[in-house]
Amino acid sequence: MNNLTKIKIEKPAKEIFEAFVDPEKIGGFWFSSCSERWEQGKTVTLRYEEYNAQGDIKIAELEANKKIVFHWGTNGEGNKVSIFFTELEDHSTSVVIEEEGFSVNHEDQILYLLDNKGGWVYTLTCLKAYLEFAVTTLRASLIKK
Amino acid sequence: MNNLTKIKIEKPAKEIFEAFVDPEKIGGFWFSSCSERWEQGKTVTLRYEEYNAQGDIKIAELEANKKIVFHWGTNGEGNKVSIFFTELEDHSTSVVIEEEGFSVNHEDQILYLLDNKGGWVYTLTCLKAYLEFAVTTLRASLIKK
Repeated sequence: MNNLTKIKIEKPAKEIFEAFVDPEKIGGFWFSSCSERWEQGKTVTLRYEEYNAQGDIKIAELEANKKIVFHWGTNGEGNKVSIFFTELEDHSTSVVIEEEGFSVNHEDQILYLLDNKGGWVYTLTCLKAYLEFAVTTLRASLIKK
Repeated sequence: MNNLTKIKIEKPAKEIFEAFVDPEKIGGFWFSSCSERWEQGKTVTLRYEEYNAQGDIKIAELEANKKIVFHWGTNGEGNKVSIFFTELEDHSTSVVIEEEGFSVNHEDQILYLLDNKGGWVYTLTCLKAYLEFAVTTLRASLIKK
């Protein structure tokens, strides 16, 4: 089962794409830091200072201002995440995130999928606040059990 | 199955409680308007101007600055939603929303639960931005298929 989340952001695609790939920007809306600029074929390390946690993601595909595909997870290959940026007629941008690879045969797996859904909606809402209003402190405030 | 979402907001519980029950405030982070102030036993109408949609909710319980319980949904009684406000030692407040009544026996039901999860995370993040930064325009930007 896939997890699909979409939001409208009142900024050009280029600016939104940069917020993901530029390690100076990610701390404004998502992880606290990233080891380096995202480039196709690279493995980069994302760090959550607040939770003393970090993980690697592998950038499979980058199309400037249009598309990002990466893999993350615990098994080396992990889930595939695709991010699509599409400029709309009113000069805003539709940002679509699709994560693939979920099983939903047990309640634990459904809870994992729900947590993932909440995570993407949270990240995209924080991203919207960051880019439209320069608000950088909404992130890292969802409370996990 | 229940849907549980928690966020930390850097405001006193009283201010967050008021954002839900005061019809002048709901348009800053959630629905566009509400018919009247929330009071125990009342049925109030929530309107989403952007989607030309509205629905009634029945307020079952109100404990000022601490707890709100309401029912919503399509079958008269509907799902039960409980909102808890707990002030923390650092003068911020933990806001917990629990919605009860989900079945997860079919993929459609899981999609409904996922949509509900995304909705609560979105509402709470918009609420945080509204109360902490007076940002009122994050709402109504998630794109549904």
